[in-house]
Amino acid sequence: MARILITSGPTRQYLDPVRYLTNASSGRMGRALAEAVIQAGHEAVIVSGPVEIDYPPEAEVHPILSTEDLLEECLSLFPDCDGMFGVAAPCDYRPIKTAAQKLSKTGSGLVMNLIETPDVIAMLGSIKQHQWIVAFALETQDQRIRAQQKLERKNADLIVLNGPDALDSTQTQVEVINPQGAVLADLEGKKSDVAAELFALVRRQFAHSFGQASA
Amino acid sequence: MARILITSGPTRQYLDPVRYLTNASSGRMGRALAEAVIQAGHEAVIVSGPVEIDYPPEAEVHPILSTEDLLEECLSLFPDCDGMFGVAAPCDYRPIKTAAQKLSKTGSGLVMNLIETPDVIAMLGSIKQHQWIVAFALETQDQRIRAQQKLERKNADLIVLNGPDALDSTQTQVEVINPQGAVLADLEGKKSDVAAELFALVRRQFAHSFGQASA
Repeated sequence: MARILITSGPTRQYLDPVRYLTNASSGRMGRALAEAVIQAGHEAVIVSGPVEIDYPPEAEVHPILSTEDLLEECLSLFPDCDGMFGVAAPCDYRPIKTAAQKLSKTGSGLVMNLIETPDVIAMLGSIKQHQWIVAFALETQDQRIRAQQKLERKNADLIVLNGPDALDSTQTQVEVINPQGAVLADLEGKKSDVAAELFALVRRQFAHSFGQASA
Repeated sequence: MARILITSGPTRQYLDPVRYLTNASSGRMGRALAEAVIQAGHEAVIVSGPVEIDYPPEAEVHPILSTEDLLEECLSLFPDCDGMFGVAAPCDYRPIKTAAQKLSKTGSGLVMNLIETPDVIAMLGSIKQHQWIVAFALETQDQRIRAQQKLERKNADLIVLNGPDALDSTQTQVEVINPQGAVLADLEGKKSDVAAELFALVRRQFAHSFGQASA
C-alpha cells in the first residue's frame, strides 16, 4: 500500500482581518484524485485550503489557510509519503504585512506591496528522496513551455497542464508532460474520470512506489 | 406585499484571470433574511456574489461577480423595491487594471495599485425615494462610532453592526443602530433567528412599506 500526499484547494493571503487574495480553486480535482487513490487501495493524505466540498471519509485531511501553512504541513507529511500530487492552487503572492485591524476606506487609493510566497512543490522537489512528484500548472498563454519550465524549476517528475476553465468546474482538460517535454496523455472529461486515468498513468510510471511492476 | 432587495455574499476583484481580492462572506445572513421575508409573505430579490449556499427557490436571484456588477444590478432593481438589506460584503478595493493573462512569478515583489470600488449602499442612499435602507457594517475597532459614520455616509435608515466572527459562520451577534445613534436591539444566535428578529424590527420601524400599521 502506498501513501500519497495530495495538496488541494486554494490558499488565502490576508491583507487585514477581512480581505484576502485567493483564487477559485474548488478542491474537486484533489477530491477526485483522493477517490482514485483510495479505490485502488492506497492511502490518501490531503492538505487542503478552505473549500466547500467534502473529501472522502477514508482520507486523512489536514486543513490549512495560507501558503505558509501549506508548506509547513507538507514538509511534515512528505517524508513519510511515497509520492504526491500538487493539485492545490496556492496563492503565490502575499502582502508584506497583514494589518491587525480592518483597513478603513479613506477615499484615496491603496498601494499593496506583495512578495512571493514560498513555492511549496519546489521546496518538496529539493528534498525528495524516493518520492515521485506530480505537479499541476495552470497557464493562460505559452502553456506547454511554461508548464515544462515549472516542471524543471520544481524538480517534479510529471506536470499536468490545465487552463483557467478548470477552476471551480466539474470538467477539465489536461495534458500530462514528462521532463523530456513529451505529452504522455491528453485527458478530457469529468474530473473523476480524468483523475482515475491520471492515477492509472502514475501507477505505470512509478510502479516501484506501488510495490509491483505494474498496478 | 412588499418587494425587498437583499444584497448578499462577497464580490471578487480580479488582478488577472486567476487571482482576486475577496472576503469570506458566505451569503448565509442574506439567505436567512430572504427566508424571513418570504415566510412573512413578501418578495425577496437577491443580488449575490459567488457563494456555495442555495437561496430559497421562491427568491428572485441575480448573480454577480464584482462590486461594479453589484452596483449596476442594484441600480436597476432598487427603484421597484420598497426597501433593502445591504448584507453583501463587497470588495471595496480593486486593482487599477486587471491583467489579461496570468501574471508570472519573476522572483521579485509586485506592487498592486488599488483604488476604491463604488460604495453601493451610498449610491442607493443618494437616490432613494420612499425606500428604507438597512446597511450592515463589519468593524474590528471603534465599532459603534464607525458604524454610525457609515450609516450617515450611506444615508441608511438603520445599520446592523457585526464583527469578523460573523463571516462564514452560522452564528452571529449584532447591534441595530438608528441615525440618532441609539441601539434599538442587540441580537445574538443562529443567523436564521437573528434574521427573523431583525426583519420583525424592520416591519415595525417601516410599517408604511408593508401596507399596515404593524406586521
